[in-house]
Amino acid sequence: MISFINDYSEVAHPKVLENLALLSNEKNPGYSNDKHSKIATNLIKSKIDDNNAYVQILVIGTQTNLIAAAAFLRPHEALITVETGHVHDHEVGSIESTGHKCITVKGESGKITIDDLKRVCSDKYWGNAGILNIKPKMVYISQTTEVGTFYTKEELTQIRKFCDDYGLYLYCDGARLASALDCSDVTLKDLAKLCDAFYIGGTKNGALMGEAMVIINDKLKEDFFYIAKQRGGILSKGFLLGIQFETLMSNNLYEKIGEHQNKMANLLREGLKKLNIEIINESKTNQIFAIISNNILDKLRNKFAWETINTSDDSTEIRLVTSWSTKKEEVNSFINSISEYLENEVC
Amino acid sequence: MISFINDYSEVAHPKVLENLALLSNEKNPGYSNDKHSKIATNLIKSKIDDNNAYVQILVIGTQTNLIAAAAFLRPHEALITVETGHVHDHEVGSIESTGHKCITVKGESGKITIDDLKRVCSDKYWGNAGILNIKPKMVYISQTTEVGTFYTKEELTQIRKFCDDYGLYLYCDGARLASALDCSDVTLKDLAKLCDAFYIGGTKNGALMGEAMVIINDKLKEDFFYIAKQRGGILSKGFLLGIQFETLMSNNLYEKIGEHQNKMANLLREGLKKLNIEIINESKTNQIFAIISNNILDKLRNKFAWETINTSDDSTEIRLVTSWSTKKEEVNSFINSISEYLENEVC
Amino acid sequence: MISFINDYSEVAHPKVLENLALLSNEKNPGYSNDKHSKIATNLIKSKIDDNNAYVQILVIGTQTNLIAAAAFLRPHEALITVETGHVHDHEVGSIESTGHKCITVKGESGKITIDDLKRVCSDKYWGNAGILNIKPKMVYISQTTEVGTFYTKEELTQIRKFCDDYGLYLYCDGARLASALDCSDVTLKDLAKLCDAFYIGGTKNGALMGEAMVIINDKLKEDFFYIAKQRGGILSKGFLLGIQFETLMSNNLYEKIGEHQNKMANLLREGLKKLNIEIINESKTNQIFAIISNNILDKLRNKFAWETINTSDDSTEIRLVTSWSTKKEEVNSFINSISEYLENEVC
Amino acid sequence: MISFINDYSEVAHPKVLENLALLSNEKNPGYSNDKHSKIATNLIKSKIDDNNAYVQILVIGTQTNLIAAAAFLRPHEALITVETGHVHDHEVGSIESTGHKCITVKGESGKITIDDLKRVCSDKYWGNAGILNIKPKMVYISQTTEVGTFYTKEELTQIRKFCDDYGLYLYCDGARLASALDCSDVTLKDLAKLCDAFYIGGTKNGALMGEAMVIINDKLKEDFFYIAKQRGGILSKGFLLGIQFETLMSNNLYEKIGEHQNKMANLLREGLKKLNIEIINESKTNQIFAIISNNILDKLRNKFAWETINTSDDSTEIRLVTSWSTKKEEVNSFINSISEYLENEVC
Repeated sequence: MISFINDYSEVAHPKVLENLALLSNEKNPGYSNDKHSKIATNLIKSKIDDNNAYVQILVIGTQTNLIAAAAFLRPHEALITVETGHVHDHEVGSIESTGHKCITVKGESGKITIDDLKRVCSDKYWGNAGILNIKPKMVYISQTTEVGTFYTKEELTQIRKFCDDYGLYLYCDGARLASALDCSDVTLKDLAKLCDAFYIGGTKNGALMGEAMVIINDKLKEDFFYIAKQRGGILSKGFLLGIQFETLMSNNLYEKIGEHQNKMANLLREGLKKLNIEIINESKTNQIFAIISNNILDKLRNKFAWETINTSDDSTEIRLVTSWSTKKEEVNSFINSISEYLENEVC
Repeated sequence: MISFINDYSEVAHPKVLENLALLSNEKNPGYSNDKHSKIATNLIKSKIDDNNAYVQILVIGTQTNLIAAAAFLRPHEALITVETGHVHDHEVGSIESTGHKCITVKGESGKITIDDLKRVCSDKYWGNAGILNIKPKMVYISQTTEVGTFYTKEELTQIRKFCDDYGLYLYCDGARLASALDCSDVTLKDLAKLCDAFYIGGTKNGALMGEAMVIINDKLKEDFFYIAKQRGGILSKGFLLGIQFETLMSNNLYEKIGEHQNKMANLLREGLKKLNIEIINESKTNQIFAIISNNILDKLRNKFAWETINTSDDSTEIRLVTSWSTKKEEVNSFINSISEYLENEVC
Repeated sequence: MISFINDYSEVAHPKVLENLALLSNEKNPGYSNDKHSKIATNLIKSKIDDNNAYVQILVIGTQTNLIAAAAFLRPHEALITVETGHVHDHEVGSIESTGHKCITVKGESGKITIDDLKRVCSDKYWGNAGILNIKPKMVYISQTTEVGTFYTKEELTQIRKFCDDYGLYLYCDGARLASALDCSDVTLKDLAKLCDAFYIGGTKNGALMGEAMVIINDKLKEDFFYIAKQRGGILSKGFLLGIQFETLMSNNLYEKIGEHQNKMANLLREGLKKLNIEIINESKTNQIFAIISNNILDKLRNKFAWETINTSDDSTEIRLVTSWSTKKEEVNSFINSISEYLENEVC
Repeated sequence: MISFINDYSEVAHPKVLENLALLSNEKNPGYSNDKHSKIATNLIKSKIDDNNAYVQILVIGTQTNLIAAAAFLRPHEALITVETGHVHDHEVGSIESTGHKCITVKGESGKITIDDLKRVCSDKYWGNAGILNIKPKMVYISQTTEVGTFYTKEELTQIRKFCDDYGLYLYCDGARLASALDCSDVTLKDLAKLCDAFYIGGTKNGALMGEAMVIINDKLKEDFFYIAKQRGGILSKGFLLGIQFETLMSNNLYEKIGEHQNKMANLLREGLKKLNIEIINESKTNQIFAIISNNILDKLRNKFAWETINTSDDSTEIRLVTSWSTKKEEVNSFINSISEYLENEVC
């Protein structure tokens, strides 16, 4: 079975496992006070060229996002997200469980727009009662988005400007940041300049697990560790996360993983397009949303795996994801199989 | 200044104040253990013909709604409301402050539709991740709605059926229930048959303050008092609320207040319509949403007060609300003033 | 039945009811934007001689305390209280419902001591894990305390000093502040100088209900109204609270109520002491805790009411509370009844 | 440096790392829907001889405990713990962050007693206001305790009986369960019979991380997964936890780890006792609390590591913990070093 279901289907990148095994006789202090966490932190600070940044590696994406809401927002402050945002429809109300509202906006191709923000930050739209309304405070974006698109530097710069004008924080969920860093014009340094906080995703980019929260805005740094610990986000064995990010941040491994994911995705995308298969929200990232006829999918099913998004009588929107482990041969096998079925169909 | 701004602009209905004054030498036990609270409770049970109902008078609407969410829902369960629902845009995120998500739907004329409910209760719409999604559990409606409409018995019956099919609770915010009881075909007994819980609003219907929560579904009754107390919803002087609801529920005072509100609103509505003024979401309740030219409003401003909903260069949508204290002469004065200005304008 | 059960057993002080009745034809804007709330606010600012204070009248004590916790503390910050503190054992976990821990200390005669504070603010006591522990942040006291004692100016000054040294807030629950202002050397101005925030209790001092939160520390003022509204603490008919505090704060009514409460309590206390009845935590406030033999109590029961604190085979600790409405004759009647029974017993 | 600081200082037991490496080419479905999680679940069910148990492997102890509070308790229900309980003083208020109070009791040698429970479950102790008080609902214990002791089967049986009588849940934190299973007379099957829920700790017993929540009481099972996901407790790569618990639960690895920890601890304990060093709360588990003179500790410091609990001018209470990796030679080296210093001191 060749799987394009997800980028979190395998244990970890071999280099990560190798380093964990190498260090298995080492004894480390707990709660991120170890040297590997410090090295990882310094590597990240150096990559973003900001020595004042606060870095804390947490475990899981949902947890990272809810800790951001708990730590950054006061009780009456809300987060703004597109409807397809992970915090809105894939986290069972994690943000609300910390007491904060998610204000949802439509967005375009999975991305929040300035018009979206204007609408919810004007009193007129968000009710007419002024002080009786929720206070929008933090813009949540993800890079790449849930629908496989990414923000350009120009788009992020405009959102940043809006946030400055309206006193909002900008927070970026980087669960799939490796892919975005490879195909967008937004670098890690740009993210650090444009966001108040963001996280560098490990789980979907070769780590066993781990998401490195990077806080730029001084106001948001104070006592972050306490709140992360309170919500169960701090591993006693924090050095495990330190070792992994030390590995990912060294020798450009993170960047190489992003590059490989996208290369495999492009191969897949171009192959599908040549076969006249419709791509939704086409982009250069490692997620492909394609509409394929049910006849073909029925024939692929015993050899390949994917995620179904939407299905109709004739065709189905599926999601294909590539990862650090995706092989060229696997992609070719998928394309060739469809090609064969299409030829047979024609006959 | 003649005010149509709201139905909570005055101290209280004279009968309420009279009874409070009459009983001012009485000493009563605290925390709703007094005879007036018991009498009020029994009057309500008798009106809804349900001796097993649990009744607890709370203080304020926002508080009542948030206590309902806290007491009725488990952490992963969400409330469904139309976008104009009070819990969504007039309570600064009160529901979320208890940890629960508000799922919003478009609605029609301020009312939730079966199509709305189908959409958010199907896995397909609300993300495609099954167990990763929020669990819709309680339908929030208000009678009357925030835009001045009301549900018919047929509409409520269909919503009830949907709730039964999908395992949802139906909860009704009755902040302006007196008006609805007068003009809709839904009686208090119907509400008690169709809802799992609802509240009978006092604040906007002649009381100083007070909202009587009525719980029908046995599952939702247990320890409600504890949770209400925890959230600051239980007055030590609970007898004050008891005396007021004893008053409102006696001699059909509540019903008479609803009737008067609607009578004055109808007078106002028909007067406006005769002057060809556009009414939005026309209904028979005590809230009127009308579009009036800015020229006219400028001239009315020094004599009358209203709430502005939306304004454009030419005209403005305003809200006019009648209350137990609104006088026929006040309504006529408003209509006549507009009429005069319109005649002058023509010349 | 003559009742010493509580100071919240009656509707309200006649002057409060009179003013509400007088203003019953007035229409007022909602949500504390009315002139009475402004006048009340200014009267309070003037009494505390601090024109920068932020004043917001809320409804109930439990609610006021939980809003203080929600608004003043970040998620990992805890409140410190004596074990007998209202927030710890009379509010069903209201503080915890906002996500904050109550750290409890023993105290002395219901009052927190510097030794208590030192113990919980040193790493050694509160676990030895530093960053893994809760962060003590707000000292909660009440004036008068739950056991009828009060803090002196010297005691409050020392607590303030400790708070300054350790970066803590000092918050005072003034549910029974009128009594304390009369018998302690702590004035309203002192409270405003020594506390970061405190509330002036209305409910137990002649109002129908209402507690005036006074915030002195600028850091704690921002957006307080939002959070109070979110938790259901803001009355749409806020002018009702404004009218009542305008009344209480005028013509020294609040001070007179405190004086009367204490005068009646002293009469009662001295009477009991003359009869050799043991007083617990003796003080000058309007709460008396006395140990009376069960034989006597059995005889008093059909004519007088009190609250039972603790009971043994022989005797019972009871609480007697005086209020604005307590009459000299009622006190004398109680003392005389005991005196008679005691004389008969001897024979 | 030989470390007795903790049992979570190393990457993982070699067998765990070996199995992760072996399976590194396998693709698994996400969110615990993989075969390894199923096998691990079945192994646990089989060990506790309860096929109806619900098992879900979570990531970290603090998280596991807070999810238990969130999922098992209604808002007004509190958890009871000894003062030294992990949830009380090592989790930054994690339980309170879910809205629930921790009622603390003194305990004896780190264990909750029936007298403790009686005190807080009687109205008289926990305030005298009945319905105004918190509702004690879940007894939290840990096996082994934070001070290195363990409950006997007789003690647990009595606590269970109390819980049955008072309608309480019994929940056991098994962070160090391997050690307890080896030295106490309480088996996994006993735990499953006596508790409503408990967790089998992985992090401190050879896993990278992972805690297997086992729910016995049917009432507590419903929708547990949702709430665990909402709080960030569900790994997308859940199979990582499945593989680890499959490993620990196979071939008695978990039992062997507990046996080894205790054997090393006993060696250490007996060695210290022979040198007349005082042991606090002596037990048979893998934590030793000993009082050693500061002179000796100063000499040990450059070769050995431990945790300091309390220190005075002369001596210090230290904690020594053994783990799956502790070697006999390391223990002997520690004992011998002390022995040498003691001999020198004498001279």
